Amino acid sequence: MAENLKRNDGLPPAMTRLVKELSRLPGIGEKTASRLAFNLLNRPRDEVIALAEALLEMKERVGLCGECFGLSDAPRCPICADPGREHDLICVVEGPADLMAIERARTFAGVYHVLHGAIAPLDGIGPDDIKIAELIARVQGDGAAVREIIIATNATVEGEATALYLARALKPFGVKATRLARGLPAGGDLEYSDSATLASAISGRREL
Amino acid sequence: MAENLKRNDGLPPAMTRLVKELSRLPGIGEKTASRLAFNLLNRPRDEVIALAEALLEMKERVGLCGECFGLSDAPRCPICADPGREHDLICVVEGPADLMAIERARTFAGVYHVLHGAIAPLDGIGPDDIKIAELIARVQGDGAAVREIIIATNATVEGEATALYLARALKPFGVKATRLARGLPAGGDLEYSDSATLASAISGRREL
Repeated sequence: MAENLKRNDGLPPAMTRLVKELSRLPGIGEKTASRLAFNLLNRPRDEVIALAEALLEMKERVGLCGECFGLSDAPRCPICADPGREHDLICVVEGPADLMAIERARTFAGVYHVLHGAIAPLDGIGPDDIKIAELIARVQGDGAAVREIIIATNATVEGEATALYLARALKPFGVKATRLARGLPAGGDLEYSDSATLASAISGRREL
Repeated sequence: MAENLKRNDGLPPAMTRLVKELSRLPGIGEKTASRLAFNLLNRPRDEVIALAEALLEMKERVGLCGECFGLSDAPRCPICADPGREHDLICVVEGPADLMAIERARTFAGVYHVLHGAIAPLDGIGPDDIKIAELIARVQGDGAAVREIIIATNATVEGEATALYLARALKPFGVKATRLARGLPAGGDLEYSDSATLASAISGRREL
Protein backbone atom coordinates (compact mmCIF):
# COMPACT_ATOMS: atom_id res chain seq x y z
CA MET A 1 0.00 0.00 0.00
CA ALA A 2 2.71 2.46 0.94
CA GLU A 3 4.51 1.53 -2.28
CA ASN A 4 2.35 3.42 -4.77
CA LEU A 5 2.34 6.67 -2.81
CA LYS A 6 3.96 9.70 -4.37
CA ARG A 7 6.82 10.26 -1.95
CA ASN A 8 8.73 13.45 -1.40
CA ASP A 9 10.96 14.38 1.51
CA GLY A 10 8.08 16.20 3.16
CA LEU A 11 9.80 19.55 2.57
CA PRO A 12 8.45 22.49 0.58
CA PRO A 13 10.58 23.07 -2.56
CA ALA A 14 11.84 26.41 -1.17
CA MET A 15 13.33 24.58 1.84
CA THR A 16 14.81 21.85 -0.35
CA ARG A 17 16.44 24.52 -2.47
CA LEU A 18 17.89 26.31 0.55
CA VAL A 19 19.26 23.04 1.95
CA LYS A 20 20.87 22.31 -1.43
CA GLU A 21 22.47 25.77 -1.62
CA LEU A 22 23.71 25.63 1.97
CA SER A 23 25.22 22.17 1.49
CA ARG A 24 27.48 23.57 -1.25
CA LEU A 25 29.42 25.40 1.46
CA PRO A 26 32.69 23.73 2.51
CA GLY A 27 32.41 21.39 5.49
CA ILE A 28 28.62 21.54 5.46
CA GLY A 29 26.89 18.29 4.57
CA GLU A 30 23.22 17.72 3.98
CA LYS A 31 22.42 17.10 7.65
CA THR A 32 24.08 20.30 8.82
CA ALA A 33 22.47 22.20 5.94
CA SER A 34 19.03 20.94 7.06
CA ARG A 35 19.75 22.01 10.63
CA LEU A 36 20.81 25.47 9.44
CA ALA A 37 17.75 25.78 7.19
CA PHE A 38 15.36 24.90 10.05
CA ASN A 39 17.15 27.38 12.28
CA LEU A 40 16.81 30.10 9.65
CA LEU A 41 13.15 29.25 9.18
CA ASN A 42 12.49 29.94 12.84
CA ARG A 43 14.50 33.16 12.92
CA PRO A 44 12.95 36.62 12.59
CA ARG A 45 12.42 37.67 9.00
CA ASP A 46 14.82 40.64 9.15
CA GLU A 47 17.70 38.47 10.39
CA VAL A 48 17.40 36.20 7.37
CA ILE A 49 17.13 39.20 5.07
CA ALA A 50 20.25 40.68 6.72
CA LEU A 51 22.20 37.51 5.89
CA ALA A 52 20.98 37.47 2.28
CA GLU A 53 21.87 41.14 1.87
CA ALA A 54 25.30 40.64 3.41
CA LEU A 55 25.95 37.92 0.82
CA LEU A 56 24.91 40.14 -2.07
CA GLU A 57 26.75 43.18 -0.74
CA MET A 58 29.95 41.19 -0.31
CA LYS A 59 29.78 39.91 -3.89
CA GLU A 60 28.90 43.39 -5.14
CA ARG A 61 31.55 45.36 -3.31
CA VAL A 62 34.54 43.28 -2.36
CA GLY A 63 37.36 43.12 -4.90
CA LEU A 64 41.14 43.17 -4.78
CA CYS A 65 43.37 46.14 -3.97
CA GLY A 66 45.20 47.16 -7.14
CA GLU A 67 48.46 47.51 -5.21
CA CYS A 68 48.70 44.62 -2.73
CA PHE A 69 45.88 42.37 -4.04
CA GLY A 70 44.39 42.11 -0.57
CA LEU A 71 40.61 42.27 -0.26
CA SER A 72 39.26 45.77 -0.65
CA ASP A 73 36.09 47.66 -1.40
CA ALA A 74 38.07 50.47 -3.00
CA PRO A 75 40.68 50.48 -5.81
CA ARG A 76 43.33 50.85 -3.09
CA CYS A 77 42.89 49.15 0.29
CA PRO A 78 43.01 51.11 3.60
CA ILE A 79 46.43 49.66 4.43
CA CYS A 80 48.04 50.65 1.10
CA ALA A 81 46.30 54.04 1.33
CA ASP A 82 47.58 54.72 4.87
CA PRO A 83 50.51 57.17 4.77
CA GLY A 84 51.37 56.09 8.34
CA ARG A 85 52.48 52.62 7.21
CA GLU A 86 56.02 51.89 6.04
CA HIS A 87 55.62 51.48 2.33
CA ASP A 88 59.19 50.28 1.84
CA LEU A 89 58.56 47.18 3.93
CA ILE A 90 56.43 44.54 2.17
CA CYS A 91 55.12 41.38 3.82
CA VAL A 92 54.28 38.65 1.29
CA VAL A 93 51.47 36.27 2.28
CA GLU A 94 49.63 33.45 0.54
CA GLY A 95 46.07 34.64 1.18
CA PRO A 96 43.87 37.36 2.71
CA ALA A 97 43.35 35.25 5.86
CA ASP A 98 47.13 35.33 6.47
CA LEU A 99 47.09 39.12 6.14
CA MET A 100 44.33 39.25 8.77
CA ALA A 101 46.32 37.04 11.12
CA ILE A 102 49.37 39.31 10.89
CA GLU A 103 47.24 42.44 11.37
CA ARG A 104 45.80 40.86 14.51
CA ALA A 105 49.32 40.40 15.89
CA ARG A 106 49.56 44.25 15.85
CA THR A 107 53.29 44.33 15.41
CA PHE A 108 53.78 44.86 11.67
CA ALA A 109 53.67 48.43 10.36
CA GLY A 110 54.58 47.85 6.71
CA VAL A 111 52.36 46.94 3.77
CA TYR A 112 51.41 43.60 2.21
CA HIS A 113 51.45 41.64 -0.98
CA VAL A 114 48.91 38.83 -1.32
CA LEU A 115 49.99 36.04 -3.68
CA HIS A 116 46.61 34.25 -3.75
CA GLY A 117 48.18 30.83 -3.54
CA ALA A 118 51.52 29.10 -3.34
CA ILE A 119 53.61 27.25 -5.88
CA ALA A 120 52.37 23.65 -5.91
CA PRO A 121 53.54 21.72 -9.00
CA LEU A 122 51.52 18.64 -7.97
CA ASP A 123 48.33 20.71 -8.11
CA GLY A 124 49.45 22.33 -11.35
CA ILE A 125 50.06 25.72 -9.71
CA GLY A 126 53.19 27.36 -11.08
CA PRO A 127 54.80 30.78 -10.43
CA ASP A 128 52.66 32.34 -13.18
CA ASP A 129 49.41 31.26 -11.50
CA ILE A 130 49.95 33.42 -8.41
CA LYS A 131 50.74 37.11 -8.09
CA ILE A 132 54.54 36.86 -8.25
CA ALA A 133 55.01 38.97 -11.41
CA GLU A 134 52.96 41.69 -9.70
CA LEU A 135 55.35 41.61 -6.72
CA ILE A 136 58.39 41.90 -9.00
CA ALA A 137 56.66 44.82 -10.73
CA ARG A 138 56.17 46.57 -7.37
CA VAL A 139 59.86 46.12 -6.54
CA GLN A 140 60.96 47.41 -9.96
CA GLY A 141 58.35 50.10 -10.21
CA ASP A 142 58.76 53.85 -9.80
CA GLY A 143 62.01 53.67 -7.83
CA ALA A 144 60.01 53.37 -4.59
CA ALA A 145 63.07 51.76 -3.03
CA VAL A 146 61.74 48.71 -1.19
CA ARG A 147 63.85 48.23 1.91
CA GLU A 148 62.87 44.69 2.87
CA ILE A 149 60.50 41.95 1.80
CA ILE A 150 59.32 39.60 4.54
CA ILE A 151 58.29 36.33 2.94
CA ALA A 152 55.49 35.12 5.20
CA THR A 153 54.24 32.15 3.20
CA ASN A 154 53.13 29.14 5.24
CA ALA A 155 55.62 26.77 6.85
CA THR A 156 54.42 24.01 4.49
CA VAL A 157 56.17 22.35 1.55
CA GLU A 158 54.34 24.67 -0.88
CA GLY A 159 54.98 27.74 1.27
CA GLU A 160 58.69 26.93 1.55
CA ALA A 161 58.98 26.28 -2.20
CA THR A 162 57.31 29.62 -2.88
CA ALA A 163 59.62 31.40 -0.44
CA LEU A 164 62.68 29.88 -2.12
CA TYR A 165 61.43 30.84 -5.58
CA LEU A 166 60.71 34.41 -4.42
CA ALA A 167 64.11 34.80 -2.76
CA ARG A 168 65.78 33.84 -6.05
CA ALA A 169 63.51 36.01 -8.17
CA LEU A 170 64.13 39.05 -5.95
CA LYS A 171 67.91 38.63 -5.79
CA PRO A 172 68.68 40.64 -9.00
CA PHE A 173 66.99 43.68 -7.46
CA GLY A 174 69.24 43.73 -4.41
CA VAL A 175 66.24 43.80 -2.08
CA LYS A 176 66.71 42.25 1.36
CA ALA A 177 64.39 39.21 1.60
CA THR A 178 63.64 37.70 5.01
CA ARG A 179 61.58 34.77 6.18
CA LEU A 180 59.41 34.52 9.34
CA ALA A 181 61.20 32.86 12.26
CA ARG A 182 60.35 29.23 12.97
CA GLY A 183 60.43 27.63 16.37
CA LEU A 184 58.25 26.81 19.35
CA PRO A 185 54.83 28.46 19.30
CA ALA A 186 53.96 30.73 22.25
CA GLY A 187 52.89 28.50 25.12
CA GLY A 188 54.40 25.56 23.25
CA ASP A 189 55.45 22.55 25.26
CA LEU A 190 58.78 20.94 24.33
CA GLU A 191 57.46 17.52 25.26
CA TYR A 192 54.64 17.69 22.73
CA SER A 193 56.46 19.49 19.91
CA ASP A 194 57.03 17.66 16.64
CA SER A 195 60.62 17.02 15.54
CA ALA A 196 60.52 19.48 12.62
CA THR A 197 59.46 22.32 14.92
CA LEU A 198 62.10 21.38 17.49
CA ALA A 199 64.78 21.18 14.80
CA SER A 200 63.79 24.70 13.64
CA ALA A 201 63.82 25.97 17.21
CA ILE A 202 67.30 24.58 17.83
CA SER A 203 68.89 25.71 14.54
CA GLY A 204 67.31 29.15 14.94
CA ARG A 205 68.31 29.60 18.59
CA ARG A 206 69.19 33.16 19.66
CA GLU A 207 71.63 34.49 22.20
CA LEU A 208 70.06 35.90 25.34
CA MET B 1 56.02 52.84 16.01
CA ALA B 2 53.37 50.21 15.29
CA GLU B 3 51.37 51.52 18.27
CA ASN B 4 49.94 54.70 16.74
CA LEU B 5 48.75 52.98 13.56
CA LYS B 6 45.05 52.88 12.86
CA ARG B 7 44.40 49.12 13.04
CA ASN B 8 41.55 47.21 11.52
CA ASP B 9 41.28 43.50 10.86
CA GLY B 10 42.38 44.03 7.29
CA LEU B 11 38.90 43.11 6.03
CA PRO B 12 36.58 45.29 3.97
CA PRO B 13 33.41 46.17 5.95
CA ALA B 14 31.25 44.07 3.60
CA MET B 15 33.28 40.97 4.50
CA THR B 16 33.17 41.78 8.22
CA ARG B 17 29.40 42.11 7.98
CA LEU B 18 29.05 38.76 6.17
CA VAL B 19 31.26 37.03 8.75
CA LYS B 20 29.11 38.51 11.53
CA GLU B 21 25.85 37.36 9.91
CA LEU B 22 27.20 33.86 9.20
CA SER B 23 28.47 33.44 12.75
CA ARG B 24 24.90 33.89 14.04
CA LEU B 25 24.11 30.44 12.61
CA PRO B 26 24.05 27.59 15.15
CA GLY B 27 27.33 25.72 15.51
CA ILE B 28 29.21 28.27 13.40
CA GLY B 29 31.82 30.28 15.25
CA GLU B 30 33.79 33.24 13.97
CA LYS B 31 36.58 31.09 12.49
CA THR B 32 34.18 28.89 10.53
CA ALA B 33 32.24 31.97 9.45
CA SER B 34 35.47 33.52 8.09
CA ARG B 35 36.27 30.32 6.24
CA LEU B 36 32.77 30.26 4.71
CA ALA B 37 32.98 33.96 3.78
CA PHE B 38 36.33 33.48 1.99
CA ASN B 39 34.92 30.47 0.19
CA LEU B 40 31.87 32.47 -0.92
CA LEU B 41 34.12 35.33 -2.05
CA ASN B 42 35.94 32.99 -4.42
CA ARG B 43 32.78 31.38 -5.76
CA PRO B 44 31.13 32.43 -9.02
CA ARG B 45 28.80 35.38 -8.62
CA ASP B 46 25.64 33.46 -9.60
CA GLU B 47 26.23 30.76 -6.96
CA VAL B 48 26.30 33.37 -4.20
CA ILE B 49 23.22 35.05 -5.64
CA ALA B 50 21.48 31.64 -5.75
CA LEU B 51 22.14 31.17 -2.02
CA ALA B 52 20.89 34.67 -1.17
CA GLU B 53 17.76 34.13 -3.25
CA ALA B 54 17.11 30.72 -1.69
CA LEU B 55 17.20 32.40 1.74
CA LEU B 56 14.75 35.11 0.72
CA GLU B 57 12.47 32.67 -1.11
CA MET B 58 12.35 30.35 1.90
CA LYS B 59 11.38 33.21 4.21
CA GLU B 60 8.87 34.49 1.68
CA ARG B 61 7.13 31.24 0.85
CA VAL B 62 7.45 28.66 3.59
CA GLY B 63 4.73 28.65 6.21
CA LEU B 64 2.79 25.99 8.09
CA CYS B 65 0.12 23.69 6.70
CA GLY B 66 -3.24 24.69 8.20
CA GLU B 67 -4.08 21.05 8.84
CA CYS B 68 -0.96 19.27 10.10
CA PHE B 69 1.27 22.30 10.86
CA GLY B 70 4.09 20.77 8.85
CA LEU B 71 6.12 23.11 6.63
CA SER B 72 4.30 24.08 3.48
CA ASP B 73 4.31 26.63 0.70
CA ALA B 74 0.54 26.27 0.29
CA PRO B 75 -2.36 26.56 2.79
CA ARG B 76 -2.46 22.75 2.79
CA CYS B 77 0.73 20.69 2.44
CA PRO B 78 1.18 18.05 -0.32
CA ILE B 79 0.79 15.21 2.20
CA CYS B 80 -2.51 16.50 3.64
CA ALA B 81 -3.71 17.28 0.11
CA ASP B 82 -2.89 13.79 -1.17
CA PRO B 83 -6.09 11.68 -1.45
CA GLY B 84 -3.90 8.55 -1.67
CA ARG B 85 -2.78 8.89 1.98
CA GLU B 86 -4.77 7.37 4.83
CA HIS B 87 -6.34 10.41 6.47
CA ASP B 88 -7.67 8.40 9.43
CA LEU B 89 -4.13 7.53 10.57
CA ILE B 90 -2.25 10.43 12.18
CA CYS B 91 1.41 10.34 13.18
CA VAL B 92 2.25 12.95 15.83
CA VAL B 93 5.83 14.29 15.73
CA GLU B 94 7.69 17.01 17.60
CA GLY B 95 9.09 18.87 14.59
CA PRO B 96 9.29 19.06 10.79
CA ALA B 97 12.65 17.26 10.81
CA ASP B 98 10.96 14.24 12.45
CA LEU B 99 8.30 14.24 9.73
CA MET B 100 11.08 14.18 7.13
CA ALA B 101 12.79 11.27 8.86
CA ILE B 102 9.59 9.20 8.83
CA GLU B 103 8.89 10.07 5.19
CA ARG B 104 12.39 8.88 4.32
CA ALA B 105 11.62 5.50 5.94
CA ARG B 106 8.95 5.09 3.19
CA THR B 107 6.69 2.88 5.25
CA PHE B 108 4.08 5.27 6.65
CA ALA B 109 1.06 6.05 4.45
CA GLY B 110 -0.99 8.15 6.87
CA VAL B 111 -0.85 11.87 7.59
CA TYR B 112 1.00 13.88 10.23
CA HIS B 113 0.52 16.33 13.05
CA VAL B 114 3.51 18.50 13.95
CA LEU B 115 3.51 19.69 17.58
CA HIS B 116 6.39 22.15 17.19
CA GLY B 117 7.96 21.17 20.49
CA ALA B 118 7.47 18.87 23.44
CA ILE B 119 6.21 19.45 26.96
CA ALA B 120 9.22 20.56 29.03
CA PRO B 121 8.22 22.16 32.33
CA LEU B 122 11.84 22.98 33.17
CA ASP B 123 12.07 25.09 30.02
CA GLY B 124 8.65 26.60 30.72
CA ILE B 125 6.99 24.76 27.83
CA GLY B 126 3.53 23.50 28.79
CA PRO B 127 0.81 21.73 26.79
CA ASP B 128 -0.61 25.09 25.64
CA ASP B 129 2.71 26.12 24.08
CA ILE B 130 2.68 23.36 21.48
CA LYS B 131 0.01 22.33 18.98
CA ILE B 132 -1.90 19.90 21.21
CA ALA B 133 -5.25 21.75 21.17
CA GLU B 134 -5.03 21.69 17.37
CA LEU B 135 -4.60 17.90 17.43
CA ILE B 136 -7.64 17.47 19.72
CA ALA B 137 -9.60 19.72 17.36
CA ARG B 138 -8.65 17.47 14.42
CA VAL B 139 -9.83 14.39 16.32
CA GLN B 140 -13.11 16.06 17.33
CA GLY B 141 -13.62 17.82 14.02
CA ASP B 142 -16.08 16.99 11.24
CA GLY B 143 -16.57 13.38 12.27
CA ALA B 144 -13.62 12.33 10.14
CA ALA B 145 -13.30 9.24 12.33
CA VAL B 146 -9.61 9.03 13.17
CA ARG B 147 -8.68 5.35 13.38
CA GLU B 148 -5.34 5.56 15.11
CA ILE B 149 -2.87 8.12 16.38
CA ILE B 150 0.80 7.08 16.38
CA ILE B 151 2.60 9.18 18.97
CA ALA B 152 6.09 9.51 17.47
CA THR B 153 7.60 12.03 19.86
CA ASN B 154 11.28 11.50 20.72
CA ALA B 155 12.41 8.78 23.13
CA THR B 156 13.58 11.52 25.53
CA VAL B 157 12.17 12.60 28.89
CA GLU B 158 10.26 15.45 27.21
CA GLY B 159 9.05 13.25 24.37
CA GLU B 160 7.82 10.57 26.78
CA ALA B 161 6.07 13.16 28.96
CA THR B 162 4.37 14.58 25.87
CA ALA B 163 3.31 11.09 24.74
CA LEU B 164 1.82 10.36 28.15
CA TYR B 165 -0.05 13.67 28.19
CA LEU B 166 -1.41 13.07 24.69
CA ALA B 167 -2.52 9.51 25.47
CA ARG B 168 -4.56 10.86 28.41
CA ALA B 169 -5.96 13.81 26.47
CA LEU B 170 -7.06 11.54 23.61
CA LYS B 171 -8.64 8.89 25.81
CA PRO B 172 -12.12 10.59 26.03
CA PHE B 173 -12.42 10.38 22.24
CA GLY B 174 -11.96 6.63 22.14
CA VAL B 175 -9.15 6.93 19.57
CA LYS B 176 -6.52 4.22 19.56
CA ALA B 177 -3.19 5.81 20.54
CA THR B 178 0.04 3.93 19.88
CA ARG B 179 3.70 4.68 20.50
CA LEU B 180 6.70 3.86 18.27
CA ALA B 181 8.45 0.62 19.24
CA ARG B 182 11.67 0.93 21.22
CA GLY B 183 14.54 -1.51 21.04
CA LEU B 184 17.84 -2.14 19.33
CA PRO B 185 18.53 0.11 16.34
CA ALA B 186 19.10 -1.62 12.99
CA GLY B 187 22.70 -2.84 12.94
CA GLY B 188 22.82 -2.29 16.69
CA ASP B 189 25.38 -4.22 18.67
CA LEU B 190 24.18 -5.73 21.98
CA GLU B 191 27.61 -5.25 23.49
CA TYR B 192 27.58 -1.49 22.94
CA SER B 193 23.88 -0.83 23.68
CA ASP B 194 23.00 1.30 26.69
CA SER B 195 20.94 -0.30 29.46
CA ALA B 196 17.77 1.71 28.77
CA THR B 197 17.74 0.57 25.14
CA LEU B 198 18.40 -3.05 26.15
CA ALA B 199 15.66 -2.92 28.78
CA SER B 200 13.21 -1.63 26.13
CA ALA B 201 14.35 -4.32 23.70
CA ILE B 202 13.79 -7.07 26.28
CA SER B 203 10.43 -5.86 27.57
CA GLY B 204 9.21 -5.28 24.02
CA ARG B 205 10.38 -8.67 22.69
CA ARG B 206 8.23 -10.30 20.03
CA GLU B 207 7.52 -13.92 19.22
CA LEU B 208 9.15 -15.22 16.04
